[in-house]
Amino acid sequence: MRQFILSIALLLSVAAFAQPGMRRGPVINGDLSVTFRAQAPQAREVAVDICGKVYPMTREGDRPWQVTTDPLEPGFHYYFLVVDGFRASDPASPHFYGTGTDASAIDIPEAGVDFYLDKDVPRGDVRLVRYWSPSLKTWRTAWVYVPAGYDTHPERRYPVLYLQHGGGEDETGWTKQGRTGAILDNLIAEGKAVPMLVVMDYGQAGDFAKILLEETIPTIDKRFRTVANAKHRAMAGLSFGGGQSWSIGLKHPEVFSSIGIFSSGMFGGVGAGAYAPFSVESQLPELLADPKAFNAAHDVFYMSCGTGDPRIEHTRKAAEALKAAGAKVHFTAWPGGHEWQPWRKSLHEFVQLLFR
Amino acid sequence: MRQFILSIALLLSVAAFAQPGMRRGPVINGDLSVTFRAQAPQAREVAVDICGKVYPMTREGDRPWQVTTDPLEPGFHYYFLVVDGFRASDPASPHFYGTGTDASAIDIPEAGVDFYLDKDVPRGDVRLVRYWSPSLKTWRTAWVYVPAGYDTHPERRYPVLYLQHGGGEDETGWTKQGRTGAILDNLIAEGKAVPMLVVMDYGQAGDFAKILLEETIPTIDKRFRTVANAKHRAMAGLSFGGGQSWSIGLKHPEVFSSIGIFSSGMFGGVGAGAYAPFSVESQLPELLADPKAFNAAHDVFYMSCGTGDPRIEHTRKAAEALKAAGAKVHFTAWPGGHEWQPWRKSLHEFVQLLFR
Repeated sequence: MRQFILSIALLLSVAAFAQPGMRRGPVINGDLSVTFRAQAPQAREVAVDICGKVYPMTREGDRPWQVTTDPLEPGFHYYFLVVDGFRASDPASPHFYGTGTDASAIDIPEAGVDFYLDKDVPRGDVRLVRYWSPSLKTWRTAWVYVPAGYDTHPERRYPVLYLQHGGGEDETGWTKQGRTGAILDNLIAEGKAVPMLVVMDYGQAGDFAKILLEETIPTIDKRFRTVANAKHRAMAGLSFGGGQSWSIGLKHPEVFSSIGIFSSGMFGGVGAGAYAPFSVESQLPELLADPKAFNAAHDVFYMSCGTGDPRIEHTRKAAEALKAAGAKVHFTAWPGGHEWQPWRKSLHEFVQLLFR
Repeated sequence: MRQFILSIALLLSVAAFAQPGMRRGPVINGDLSVTFRAQAPQAREVAVDICGKVYPMTREGDRPWQVTTDPLEPGFHYYFLVVDGFRASDPASPHFYGTGTDASAIDIPEAGVDFYLDKDVPRGDVRLVRYWSPSLKTWRTAWVYVPAGYDTHPERRYPVLYLQHGGGEDETGWTKQGRTGAILDNLIAEGKAVPMLVVMDYGQAGDFAKILLEETIPTIDKRFRTVANAKHRAMAGLSFGGGQSWSIGLKHPEVFSSIGIFSSGMFGGVGAGAYAPFSVESQLPELLADPKAFNAAHDVFYMSCGTGDPRIEHTRKAAEALKAAGAKVHFTAWPGGHEWQPWRKSLHEFVQLLFR
């Protein structure tokens, strides 16, 4: 009987904190300020760190710590609770892999902007594809967006966008933070984007050029009905992934015909961590030597950056230098900083240009 | 120039903590004890709470807090850091949705047990399927395991297992914690399980019986090549999800012909949170009335529990009461407590019995 009562108590206790909807996470107020709360009764100092700004929290008696921020920019912001100097994610809200850890985040809506929200349109899915990497000697997971209709049109083949995350993020970022599935579903339903696959993989591992070109792409071409040529293959990325789109994507016009560089500001060398300042002379001599051939090999060459991102100046200059060298470059500046809202908008604009 | 140097500094700072492999998470020692570390320089008291046992951490000078536990049971254990009373997940290790939050966890290997590890066999994938719930008026995501060969055999149709998580977990649990993909891939490759779909959805929402029967199953039957009849449909779950397998699965033999109840100990009423102690008389009068018809309608009726789980006694008695009432019940007791290792083993055993 004791066992039985214990069993009931255990089950009820598990059930009691079982509703994620019940997690009392941050509340977005009408002026886009956010009220954060934290349960840390024995702590001396608690703060929330969001968008690089630290807001000390206060408490009354034994109630939770609390603070309301200034109005925040629309978009997706990572944040942390700082409890007596310990930087932690918030147990009361969902976590996203970013800034090198499983971080808390809040998504502030932007008035009139709904291209990345779920809508009643035919839905694709995202497939978690496990594959072996001979170079890393480990199993990897590619997240692959597959448009609606893929399963019901087995005769149809699809172009592919390889889409890379930023530094400290991983293969989940473009789906969870970026909302790639909803963005593509909505555009394809409106006829504004060609149905395509989007492959999102982890880019900060080993010799990523080798992994992408010799392992990931052959895996995708084998396991999905792709059109396996450069004309039907694009590469894009944000920040660190934008650097890779330059250093890998632009360097391999025989593999990719379209390139997107979002908020990168400079260009990553082949391999993780190797960065160099942008230089048309040293990095793209083929463009200087023959701009016509370069343009003929590239259907879309897209660059973008938030105007509040320190990288804007450098990105703008890079686009100008590329244009001066004869390249056809599409450049867009978005409102916002080094955050997901400009990246969602960049993806939304970029994919509409692809595979036309 | 200042802008440019800032830009380099920003990029390098992002790159610097960009390698998850670099996260200095817990270390499993040779005796299966675990050494945990925490960076909390200003905290007064730090502890790790694992498997319900709290280990106070200590530090020398300004080095990180540290503790080494007793040897731990093999399997997957949630844990938390407790910093001055603030219960947080560990920024240095991956998080899993469990215990009602994004929790830290450590997976202790079991000697000689490799059925849930990645192997060089044909790999299926897991598909994140977005669908609208009319009853909840929200978009939901079903995680659907699809076996290898599904895309290359478009003429083939598949049986389906509906597999539910426990209290405080969600639709990601069976894939991430449970390793369903590897378990099924390995069994199917060995010919020990029939190729099947496994649908993992969020079960602690609204009237789950209604959602499952009227929304999820029709969605899956529409979007996948299923064999849409009871003979080719099973339901199973762990703990809270085991209760649902009883209250929904067993109550609908016209929908499910096989049922698995892992570590439940008692049986959930229809709807979230409604629990009742097990009673053949009040809950399964149809079994008492006509055991032959009950057995004829059920191909597999499976129950299991860890011997270290307080629910073992009640589960064993329930299985005996069911047998006494004339039901064919397969009962297995596993080593271990109310944790994922017995649930992985239960899934591994249960799916081998299905759809024969």
